[in-house]
Order: sequence, then structure tokens, then C-alpha cells
Amino acid sequence: MDKASQLDAIFFPRNLAVIGVSANEDTFGGRFLKALIDFGFKGKLFPVNPKGGEVFGLKIYPRVSDIPEPVDSADIMVPAQSVPQVLRECLAAGVKGAQIYSSGFSETGDPERAALEEELKTIAAQGIRVIGPNCFGVYCPAGGHTLLPGGDFPKESGPIGFISQSGGHAVELGRQARGRGLRFSKAVSYGNACDVNEADLLEYMARDPETKVITAYLEGPREGRRFFDLVKSTALMKPIVIWKAGLTEAGARAVRSHTGSLGGEEAIWRALFQQTAAIRVGSLEEMADTAEALLMLPRHTGRRIGMVGGGGGTSVAATDACAAVGLALPPFDDAMRKRLLELLPVAGTMMRNPVDVGVPLVPPDVFRRVLETVAAVESIDTLIATQPLFYVLGGHFPMPVPRDEIVRMLVEVPAAVRDKSGKPVVVVLPVGGEEVEMAEAEKGRRRARDRYREMGILSLPSLDRVAKAVANVVTYYEKAASTE
Amino acid sequence: MDKASQLDAIFFPRNLAVIGVSANEDTFGGRFLKALIDFGFKGKLFPVNPKGGEVFGLKIYPRVSDIPEPVDSADIMVPAQSVPQVLRECLAAGVKGAQIYSSGFSETGDPERAALEEELKTIAAQGIRVIGPNCFGVYCPAGGHTLLPGGDFPKESGPIGFISQSGGHAVELGRQARGRGLRFSKAVSYGNACDVNEADLLEYMARDPETKVITAYLEGPREGRRFFDLVKSTALMKPIVIWKAGLTEAGARAVRSHTGSLGGEEAIWRALFQQTAAIRVGSLEEMADTAEALLMLPRHTGRRIGMVGGGGGTSVAATDACAAVGLALPPFDDAMRKRLLELLPVAGTMMRNPVDVGVPLVPPDVFRRVLETVAAVESIDTLIATQPLFYVLGGHFPMPVPRDEIVRMLVEVPAAVRDKSGKPVVVVLPVGGEEVEMAEAEKGRRRARDRYREMGILSLPSLDRVAKAVANVVTYYEKAASTE
Repeated sequence: MDKASQLDAIFFPRNLAVIGVSANEDTFGGRFLKALIDFGFKGKLFPVNPKGGEVFGLKIYPRVSDIPEPVDSADIMVPAQSVPQVLRECLAAGVKGAQIYSSGFSETGDPERAALEEELKTIAAQGIRVIGPNCFGVYCPAGGHTLLPGGDFPKESGPIGFISQSGGHAVELGRQARGRGLRFSKAVSYGNACDVNEADLLEYMARDPETKVITAYLEGPREGRRFFDLVKSTALMKPIVIWKAGLTEAGARAVRSHTGSLGGEEAIWRALFQQTAAIRVGSLEEMADTAEALLMLPRHTGRRIGMVGGGGGTSVAATDACAAVGLALPPFDDAMRKRLLELLPVAGTMMRNPVDVGVPLVPPDVFRRVLETVAAVESIDTLIATQPLFYVLGGHFPMPVPRDEIVRMLVEVPAAVRDKSGKPVVVVLPVGGEEVEMAEAEKGRRRARDRYREMGILSLPSLDRVAKAVANVVTYYEKAASTE
Repeated sequence: MDKASQLDAIFFPRNLAVIGVSANEDTFGGRFLKALIDFGFKGKLFPVNPKGGEVFGLKIYPRVSDIPEPVDSADIMVPAQSVPQVLRECLAAGVKGAQIYSSGFSETGDPERAALEEELKTIAAQGIRVIGPNCFGVYCPAGGHTLLPGGDFPKESGPIGFISQSGGHAVELGRQARGRGLRFSKAVSYGNACDVNEADLLEYMARDPETKVITAYLEGPREGRRFFDLVKSTALMKPIVIWKAGLTEAGARAVRSHTGSLGGEEAIWRALFQQTAAIRVGSLEEMADTAEALLMLPRHTGRRIGMVGGGGGTSVAATDACAAVGLALPPFDDAMRKRLLELLPVAGTMMRNPVDVGVPLVPPDVFRRVLETVAAVESIDTLIATQPLFYVLGGHFPMPVPRDEIVRMLVEVPAAVRDKSGKPVVVVLPVGGEEVEMAEAEKGRRRARDRYREMGILSLPSLDRVAKAVANVVTYYEKAASTE
């Protein structure tokens, strides 16, 4: 049985030992145990500490071998020096998996501490699957397990799998995603990868029916060749989005200090992205944007963009941003110009694609008719519309009807146009103003974003982000078709 | 007298005609006049409309020649076809300057409308300085004049000059800057530049003692050679930050449709940035960030960065981001590592630069001592510190003292370290969470940003933005020294 098949003991443990928790609730271990309880772990929890006692109403067992029931998995947070002994005891007790949160191993650069990690490798090879050390562990809502510190992470499962060589990024992506309504099947911070590595996790997620889009943050893979082959075959079945960090010389040095791994050469990574359908991103934000876009946009999303939105200068910037990521803005002809002139005044507007609707906010009905007119152009695959709702929400202009009503009407437009035309519509929903007071209008913007999501409309705060996300989706389906 | 010297009639008019305002307050002209009144225009306002009447308690004169006092400048917002006649009347009446807000000229691509613009050129050449047409005009707080729509723009002057070929960008930068506390000497949306162009405005701002940093958004300059020469000489005296848009083929087409100008070739622009000390930016955001950094950072800000902040993965990304813009992170030696070990635990931290302080937020005193230790390293010029205050503000963790108190203590640290060490400290102040509710914590973040600004500390929401802004400042002083 390969390692990937053995991971369910860690993702879905029934009985879980939490080793390194004392009777003092206000310690690192105590807070983590509390996070598991808060998160709603459904199996039995067995705190372990040689001093015994009780914590959160649970009996503390001196050693894992004292636990009266079979244990599926152990969460280990004792000091680095004690970890090998604890892991040996787990193995002896028949525990099938472990997550080692403790750090202070090879990442320190200290040979003695690197030797400790070698010991863990040897023990794991005898039959226990290990995530870590130096990690934040596993977030698997369906298994009731959260990563560290993730007591307040969403309890609902979702379609995104995340493989992260950084614990901080796992927490950060979870945090961003939570607010944006993105949900995970599994997110794994696997740290120094003394046993389970990026390839094992990719293999698991490739087979996992719950995972529809795989995302990965990588510094230095442990099994580069195997990972490459797995990416190649997996990306034909489901999208893989990879952020590879540490490619600059200085970045590679930071990688060594962080997870004790080698950064790897840019040439190898370039080959991976050329020869597989995996999508390369450059930040956590672009990773989340791309995953969301892959989940919301249809397969027939195309590169030929019809752009509708605000302001001449903005339209120029939008055009540059699209061109930079390989999206095209086919110019509209005179007949199209005439059709748009029936809807918009000639002064202060542009009709050639982008269509600049002139004033910051057009009436909802005009907005809809302009979008429909653009959607009807045969050479257009995908629409991008800018909605500076903050002009309404922030009270910049007098409005003839209540503000909430205008926002509600505007927000319904893109889905209506999509449903009528069959073409994807993506929305740029800018953040308005930097003032302390404008943070209030930001709430309304986020509510509009949530409403878009409910209607299956992708919205992001800037044109740059929309352009990248759309281009990444198109590129994925193109590559998946051509590498098949 | 050159054109630049004649612009004060437009920036600081005593008597101002507003042409195209009717007795109906709720029209375009009426709202603009109201904006001027709200903004606090200090001279006399003379609305002009053939129908006469009264608006906001002001008498409407049928024609500009009917105004009983000498008029310095006229704001014109009549339909395009009527503009030449109105401008001729202004010239005849001895008006020295005009701003033509009306659009519908060469930017439409229509030959008849382009001919109208030629007419304006001919009239202007006879002795009246004209901003526009197809523009949002002039924002000059000291002169009491605001651009369109800018009734709520700050009334205080500041050190930033902005030359913008896009009205939308002028409004947008003003809007962003307002919230961030950036203040302008003059911001000019000059549109189609039938008379006053980018070179005239640059010449004015070069001489203007109030303007300390010049920023410019350009699509296609009208006097390329003269502009180039002016950039070269001016950038030795004060920083010039330029965003040139429309460099891609599609972008150049959008430029033609927007301001009827030619985008210009990338090679020419590359030469400009190579041969002058002007700084190139790629977005409005980077322009504002760079202007703020130029105003807040000292001349001795250097490329060798000491980085302190949160999380291993974040540190790797930070290192890549710095390397990408030419900032260096000199690795710390073992002696330094020992010093840091006295302040931080070995587990879960990194000591080599970046220094990862481990947990999301360290106690203010430890944070200060770590920063001081890094500032004391001779090979470090400039410090960058990440402060994820939203962990406190958003209530993610239990805190031993009141949250406001922790935030207050943390926010004082960077200025204290700067004052003690004499080295610049720049802060990364991330936005926390995307939830509707977290918009509340965003208020606290913005208050912290305002407090930083009061203390002369530059803070921006992401490491990427900080790295670019710092690199732009360093590059400016390097280029200014070497092109002298």
C-alpha cells in the first residue's frame, strides 16, 4: 500500500492522541486541544502527558500506550528532543499516523537537530505515516481536524485541496478563503516532510473525489521526478495551481532556512509548466483567485474579452493588463459603435472595446443593455465588467432611489446577461477609498461580492487580478487539451 | 512669456466664469458650480448662460462679455459644437485662461469633431491658455479650484504635483490619496491638450516651489522631445514618477480612442527612463506609494534590507519580492544569530534575514529589541517590518492586556527604532480577512496607518508594495546622482 492510501488515518481519525498537553489549559498544547474541541472533532480525544491529570474535562494519559482504545493518529507537540521517543511509542502502540507540529529540526541548520529529523525518518519507515515536523498540520473539515491555529476555520468542506510547504501560508490562505467563501477538502502544511511529502499529498488529492482543484505552495520538493510525473498525469483530470517560491538566489537561501530544502532551479520549473497543464501563479492571492475562477468559470471561457467599465484612463490600463496576460480585446466595428450610441452619449465615452460607459455608475438598465450588446458580438468569448459600487455605497453622489436598491439592481445584471447570452461575465469590484470611514462602505462591497458568488459570478477587486485569473483558466483548458 | 508662466491665471483665478450653467441646479454645470462653492472657491464666481437667470444666489450673465469685472479664467462646459464660439468670446473679453471640460472632440475619431479641436488650437494661439478639452480640469487647493467631480477633495495643499492625461485617474488618485493623507499642490487632468500639454505642465511644476514630487500619467505626449529634455533637467532637482500606459498594441489603440493621441514606442520610453532620473511605475497605486515613499524616506535609504516579520513562507515570498526589485537581504552571521536567540526561541523562527519572529504577533518589547538588533547590523541600510495588527484587531487571539493598548504599543516601535538607530524603518501593515465583519478591524488598521504617517513612518498593506516603493526611492537617488 502506498503512502497516499495510508493518509486517511490522519485526515479522518476516530481516536486521536494529542501528545504534549498539560493540565494547564493556557499552554501551546492546551490551546491547540481547545481549537480541536471548538472545531468540533467528532471522534475521541486522548491528551497525553507524563504528568497525567485532566484538561478540558478529559483525562490525560501518561503515555500513548496507556490509552485503552486503539488510536488512529497522534498530534505531537513536545519539544524537538523528545519527538523521536514519542513517535517510537506511537509506532509501538499501533498508531497509524502522526502530525509533528514541533519545530527545531533540520530547518535550524544545526547538525544535531538535523540528526533528530533523520531519526524520525527511520521510525516512520517502520510503518507510521508522519506529517511534519515543523508544520501546522492538517485541516480537513470532513474529518473534524483543523490545523494550527484554526479553531475558527470553516466547518464545511469544499472542492479545493491545498498542499503547503509553509504553515503560515496554509493559515493565511485559509483565512483569506474563509472570508471569500472558498472551501477546502484538505489543506496540509507538511513542513520538513520527513515522511509524507508533496508527491504523496498530490497523489492523495489526485484520487480524492472531494478535491476538484489542487493548489500547492512549494519551496523545494523532496521527490522532484515523481512530483513532475504526478503533476503531468493529474493535471489532465483536474486543475493544479502551483506557487513555487524561492527561485531567486536570496529566496533559495530563505527556503533553506525555512524548511531545510533546496529551492531547485528555475529551468526545471519552467519545464514543468511547459510540459504539463499545471498553472503557475506568483502569490497566494493569485492562487486563491485562480482556484475560485477555475471553480466558477465554464470550460468555454475564452481569450477574446469584451470589456465594459469606467473611465478612459482605466480602459487604457485595462487593455494593457489584458495584453500582458495574453487576453485579446477585439476592436468593435462601426455598426457596433452605432448600436452602443443608441445607449450611451458620444461625449465622455469610448465604444471600441473597452466600452467606457462614461460616468462612474450608469443606470442598471443601461448597464444591462450595454453588456447584452457586447455579449451579442460574435468575436467576444468572455465579458469583464467594472462596477465601482463604492460610489453608491460611500455616498459620493445624490441618488434618485435608495442606495441599497441601486446596488441590488446593479448586482443582478451580470448573472442576467450571462444567463441570456450563455457567455461568462466576470466582475471587477473595486475597493473604494482609503479613509477610516470608507471601511464602512467596504462592508457593502463585500456583501455584493458574496451575492455575486451565490449567483456563480466571479468578482475580484481589481482588473489586474481578474485578467490574471481569467487568463489562467483559459490557459489551463488549452494546456490540458494539448498535452493530452 | 512661455505657456507655463501663464498658468497661474488658471490655478489661482480671482474672478472665474463658469460657462454652461443654467438656472437649474441639478444639471452637470449646476453640480460643478456647487462643487466649486462647496470646495470654498475664494474669488468671485460668474455663471454664464444665454438664458440668464440666477443659480445658487448668483446672477447668470448671458455672455462672458457681459461680466462687469475682468475675468481671469473660464470653466467651460457647453456642448462641443459651441465651445469654439465661447472660447473666442473669452479671448475677446481678455480672459487669460480656460478649462474645457466638454468632450466630443478628436477622441471620438470623427473628422468633423477633430476639426472643432483644431479650431480651439487656433483660438488658443491668439493668447488664451487652454486646459482640455475632454478633461476633468485642475485641482489646486491653494487656488480654491477643484476638478470635476471634486467638491469633497481635501482643501489643504501638499507637496505632490500630478499631471494626468486621464480625468478618471486624476479623480482616482485624488480619492486614494485623500484617504491616505497624501496632499497635492496641483493635479491637472489635461485631456486632449489642444493648447497646454504635458511639457508645459511639467515646466510649471519644475519651477513651482510648492511641488516637491512630480507624478504623471501619460498616454501619448504631444511634445515628446521637449518633454524628454524637461524630464532630464527637472529630475535632478526633484523626483519625477511616471506611469506610461498604452505600450501594448491593444493599449495603444485604447489610447487613440481615449485622448486621440499616439501611444509612442516602448523603445523611446525605455531610453527616457535610462537617460533620466525619472522613476517608472506601472499603476496608479505604485505611483501613490512611490510618491509617499519619496516624501517620507530619507536620501540615505539603501538597498540592503533587514527584514523582520511573520512566518517562514512569508519570509521566502518577501525575499523573492525584494530580489525581484533589486533589494538585497544580506545574510546574518552566527554572532547575530546568537544575539537574536537571546530574544527569540529557536523553534519556529528564522534568524538569517529575514528574521521570522515566529508567532503572528510578538510582545511589543521583544519586537522592539529584535528591530534594534537588526538595525545595529552594519551591512543593513533599511529595515522592513511586518505588523499583522489584524490578529489583535480582529480578536483572533486572547490578549493579556486591552487590544487597543497592544496596538498602540506596537505602533510606536518602528519610529522609536528609527530614531535610535538613524536607519529608515518601513512597515508592512496587511489588511486582515475578507469577511464582511472584518471590515470593522480594517478601521483599526487604517487608524494605525494614520498614526504611522504622523510619526513619519511609511506603511503599506503588502510586502510587494513596500519593496517596490523602497526600491523606487533608492533608484531615484542613485540615478539622480549618476546622471548629474
